[in-house]
Amino acid sequence: MSAAATTRRVREEGGTVGLETYWATDPSEVLRVRQGFTLADVDTRSTPGFEGDKAAAETSLAEGAVILAELQEKLFAGNQMGDDPRRVLLVLQAMDTAGKGGIVKHVMGAVDPQGVQLATFKKPTEEELARDFLWRIRKRVPDAGMIGVFDRSHYEDVLIGKVRELASPEEIERRYDAINEFEAELASSGTTIIKVMLHISMDEQKERLLDRLERPDKHWKFNPGDIDERLLAPMYREAYQAVFERTTTPHSPWYVIPADRKWYARLAVQHLLIEALEAMRLDWPMAAFDVEAEKARLQAS
Amino acid sequence: MSAAATTRRVREEGGTVGLETYWATDPSEVLRVRQGFTLADVDTRSTPGFEGDKAAAETSLAEGAVILAELQEKLFAGNQMGDDPRRVLLVLQAMDTAGKGGIVKHVMGAVDPQGVQLATFKKPTEEELARDFLWRIRKRVPDAGMIGVFDRSHYEDVLIGKVRELASPEEIERRYDAINEFEAELASSGTTIIKVMLHISMDEQKERLLDRLERPDKHWKFNPGDIDERLLAPMYREAYQAVFERTTTPHSPWYVIPADRKWYARLAVQHLLIEALEAMRLDWPMAAFDVEAEKARLQAS
Repeated sequence: MSAAATTRRVREEGGTVGLETYWATDPSEVLRVRQGFTLADVDTRSTPGFEGDKAAAETSLAEGAVILAELQEKLFAGNQMGDDPRRVLLVLQAMDTAGKGGIVKHVMGAVDPQGVQLATFKKPTEEELARDFLWRIRKRVPDAGMIGVFDRSHYEDVLIGKVRELASPEEIERRYDAINEFEAELASSGTTIIKVMLHISMDEQKERLLDRLERPDKHWKFNPGDIDERLLAPMYREAYQAVFERTTTPHSPWYVIPADRKWYARLAVQHLLIEALEAMRLDWPMAAFDVEAEKARLQAS
Repeated sequence: MSAAATTRRVREEGGTVGLETYWATDPSEVLRVRQGFTLADVDTRSTPGFEGDKAAAETSLAEGAVILAELQEKLFAGNQMGDDPRRVLLVLQAMDTAGKGGIVKHVMGAVDPQGVQLATFKKPTEEELARDFLWRIRKRVPDAGMIGVFDRSHYEDVLIGKVRELASPEEIERRYDAINEFEAELASSGTTIIKVMLHISMDEQKERLLDRLERPDKHWKFNPGDIDERLLAPMYREAYQAVFERTTTPHSPWYVIPADRKWYARLAVQHLLIEALEAMRLDWPMAAFDVEAEKARLQAS
């Protein structure tokens, strides 16, 4: 793939979205949260922009992996040699079993580990609870040249924080503002932020939890607390709806991805990353040394 | 693959080493640094234990990736559910272009990113220089349940530190002892340590550096300082020899891997990881909850 091809961003006729050839229409247009968005309207089994089946999606994912890997290498290279300060941050939020882990494994797993920084946020520690909720988040912001992935994030503090009343309504309100300020700061320092909610139906979740209970090699992925959380799903959906309304900004958009079909969700997240990297118009950095002089020096060594 | 197969460790007749089927003899026996080892005696183009060619090695690497991925998942699972404190630390050392990056990309890249913690150690910062050399290293020791990879390590402090006289001979001596103490501490807290030096010839290095100079998409990987370091190669080899003599212990062995053939080095490092994980006799952890009760609760939800 030539450098020119990588920075080509024209949407062609007949099913090509940027560098990818397998989309019928650009999925990001449909998935992006806009004014008037309602979570309840999303069909969790739909596959916006993709008309193929599971097998076709897997082939496409492999094709996209090559595109994504080259773009990631250019992002990394531009920082290594050119001090390009830019970076990407993918925020993953979802109910249990929706497939965050699978995204990390199958989408990010196809990228050179040297260019990916993964941060998994669990229940905060005592030390973390004693500080502002963004303290532990700030420490894990990706370095320049990297693709960072947050597996859960500061949004937990306005999701479980709200549903379980771990903070007062006033504090939750304050946090929305703090999040917007934090993300504006990240964006202005060269971070492209992509916020994803993977959305599955209650039936699909029941099936996936049952699978974990039925397979001894999956027991470790199950936690009785998952069922307690499941019982609160309607409240979580309300909390997500509030998050979308309060924290969707042009520089830090939300995408809600139907995730009953894992293969679609993976392809869609991969696309959002490719799209973000394409928009950066990356290219191999110029040599910061005299190539011919170095060749001569090497030959003499 | 059954759990029983995974913990099988008997070396069978006729080319089977533990779970892997493609070794003629166990490579770790040959690669392991022992009393009387001399770096100068290593044939950098050899492929100890493997009789196939590049294509065969690539097929074998894909086969090994499946074995390694399952073992890694069990290591991770055992910590998630069973609080198993064990972990693995792979230390990678080498001259420039020897292939550390390729090991990370092609061996570790086949493992779920959620189970891998990669730490790349570059030139120390001012803050790091103001502290003991192990300060920055301790902060990056892998968590329980993880496979940690050090791309360069505390050994730089007795390699470049010695060759470039960044520290006094007395301080270098003190560091060998400090390293041994540090690694003994790691081992006693459940860390399996695998130290690898990738070893290439001067000719092979010249060819690889030239390739980086000839390809604009590889320029970013080249640094004029690489040639300066190359000129000191004989001194580095002496420094490595001293490292092997001073820091090879039963709980923290060194392996020197001939690396002129990248495909061999990758397969060999993958084997060392598989062997270490096999030796831990990992299995899926027992459920810490009543499976039937949880199934009933889920069905009612």
